[in-house]
Amino acid sequence: MEIKELGEFGLIERLTKDINPSNQSTVKGIGDDAAVLHYSDKETLVASHMFMEGIQFDLTYIDMQHLAYKCAMITMSNIFAMNGKPNQLIISIGLGKRFKVEDLDQFYKGLKAACGKWSVDIIGGDTTSSYTGLAINMTCIGEAAKNEIVYRNGAKPTDIICVSGDLGSAYMGLQILEREKTVFYQQVEEYNKKLKAAQEAGNTAAIKSLNAEREVIFNFQPDFAGKEYLIDRQLKPEAPGNILAQLRDSHIHPTAMIDISDGLASDLKHICKDSKCGCRIYEDKIPIDYQTAATCEEFNMNLTTAALNGGEDYELLFTIPISEHAKIEKMENIRQIGYITEQQLGEYIITRDGNEFKLLAQGWQEE
Amino acid sequence: MEIKELGEFGLIERLTKDINPSNQSTVKGIGDDAAVLHYSDKETLVASHMFMEGIQFDLTYIDMQHLAYKCAMITMSNIFAMNGKPNQLIISIGLGKRFKVEDLDQFYKGLKAACGKWSVDIIGGDTTSSYTGLAINMTCIGEAAKNEIVYRNGAKPTDIICVSGDLGSAYMGLQILEREKTVFYQQVEEYNKKLKAAQEAGNTAAIKSLNAEREVIFNFQPDFAGKEYLIDRQLKPEAPGNILAQLRDSHIHPTAMIDISDGLASDLKHICKDSKCGCRIYEDKIPIDYQTAATCEEFNMNLTTAALNGGEDYELLFTIPISEHAKIEKMENIRQIGYITEQQLGEYIITRDGNEFKLLAQGWQEE
Repeated sequence: MEIKELGEFGLIERLTKDINPSNQSTVKGIGDDAAVLHYSDKETLVASHMFMEGIQFDLTYIDMQHLAYKCAMITMSNIFAMNGKPNQLIISIGLGKRFKVEDLDQFYKGLKAACGKWSVDIIGGDTTSSYTGLAINMTCIGEAAKNEIVYRNGAKPTDIICVSGDLGSAYMGLQILEREKTVFYQQVEEYNKKLKAAQEAGNTAAIKSLNAEREVIFNFQPDFAGKEYLIDRQLKPEAPGNILAQLRDSHIHPTAMIDISDGLASDLKHICKDSKCGCRIYEDKIPIDYQTAATCEEFNMNLTTAALNGGEDYELLFTIPISEHAKIEKMENIRQIGYITEQQLGEYIITRDGNEFKLLAQGWQEE
Repeated sequence: MEIKELGEFGLIERLTKDINPSNQSTVKGIGDDAAVLHYSDKETLVASHMFMEGIQFDLTYIDMQHLAYKCAMITMSNIFAMNGKPNQLIISIGLGKRFKVEDLDQFYKGLKAACGKWSVDIIGGDTTSSYTGLAINMTCIGEAAKNEIVYRNGAKPTDIICVSGDLGSAYMGLQILEREKTVFYQQVEEYNKKLKAAQEAGNTAAIKSLNAEREVIFNFQPDFAGKEYLIDRQLKPEAPGNILAQLRDSHIHPTAMIDISDGLASDLKHICKDSKCGCRIYEDKIPIDYQTAATCEEFNMNLTTAALNGGEDYELLFTIPISEHAKIEKMENIRQIGYITEQQLGEYIITRDGNEFKLLAQGWQEE
């Protein structure tokens, strides 16, 4: 169905009719000039992200449902990274003419799935046309008690640097998707060449045989066997809310925290800069999934570079006082990868063979 | 300067280095995963808007500074329309390659001017590339005491319908800008034709004379004489905060309120729908500036249609109990244009000659 058949107000009504706010802090959601929230005894947290077609996402390999899910998880992840709880989400979307009402249905399906997972209310937004690609903006609002908020600037020398989950997997998932996309386009191009040649030669038998092949080519099934985890990490990332619950249960309060979106190196450097300190991390402590390692070998890529700079991990990177060492050690899914130092000692990674390399936001460099 | 020379972090630092939050409710602005706000004894209001190049704005006739100012005012206007005070603004921007650092400087200049006017803190946002046009999203956060918030749904039969300022002027401003743009493009096209003809004929004298003309053509100065107010209303709208102060000073509490963005007809229908009531407004009561009327005549357009459906007025449309009639009458800049009725009486405009026409979201129709 064309969007213009419904109009702006009709479209909004269709997409939002079954949205019912459930959080106590949501006084009024969709339907007025502004949403009304009640945050009496907690601090309010706000984070906003823009996602542009061709830059942050490629609709060749992510569908509207996964896209909405991913964008929502990324935005919520910022609230978790403050040790907060996300409560509300506002969505703006700029849509080119090629999108149909059904695309928006899929988008909202993914959005609702992501919000449902963390009991987040969809409280409003804006829908507009776009002359060009798809543009998405999400703003997440959450809460945290004042003394529970974890900023980037609280790390102290001797603090232990911890990271949840594993790193580099979303990046390697992207590599696989890019490769399959290339394979697909190559097949299409070759097919078109052959067809053109057959048509020019008037080779009816060849044209017939190529027409039979057509469906196989255009129903290309990418080969993800054994790489399912990586694809999932790229297309369906999860906000790290469970890690916070684990830390709370163990009465561990991080001194500094950030979610890993740009890559471990870049995000650890943010903590160091804001906390005015240095760091040492150990290459062999960085958590890496087996599929990530195997795929790096297959692609002839450096595994540590993928883990340090791949990005899109949406894991939590945080520091804890050294006194909490024993508590953390027991936790599945959290790895201690190094420690915080005085600022003048710089930011370094210690490789498996004992060498120290300066940590750079993009890659790492021998000194 | 190219944006890539600074990089994302360098650019953000340059644009935000002199931004210092001044509102008590801003605990932490730019620089962490999320902004931290403190809204203890008031309700939190949130509104978000997306602005896409070629849809909401045309960079042919609005510069980056005015654009930022306008987008910020529009977003703040939503908070005022709840009878709130805007406190914080979050800005996301998706930038095509053609934009330079200096364009962003201008954008932030306009942004800071708008925010400064209403003591609003810039507390964060997102900067990304765009393969195509400019995409902007702004989210405004504000506050209001629970019993002061004015929703769209509180209008009651016999309530008086009021509107601030005047209507249709921003729309007529747009008509003038569109006309001047057309004139400019026609001149350029004619010039290019003449130049091509001269070149093909090898007419050196004509080419020389055309080259001399070139600067005049491309430094086109549009003719806005006598239309300055309309251009201003289109390019530099103001959020209606002063009207709220006036109402508060007179102890008038509107029963329903909305800001006029889509046009009086459409926005009044929102109030009627949400309040489950009807309305009568009088054509001759609708406030119209002299320049708007003169320009409508010049363009051979219907003045009432421009006022009812032009949009982008960013004036306040609100209803008050009939008992407040005398108080409102004294107020400069606020006009009483009609009254609220029972829902079954429908939504009508009464023309100068006493006819009733059904109010339609787009235009109005004889029944």
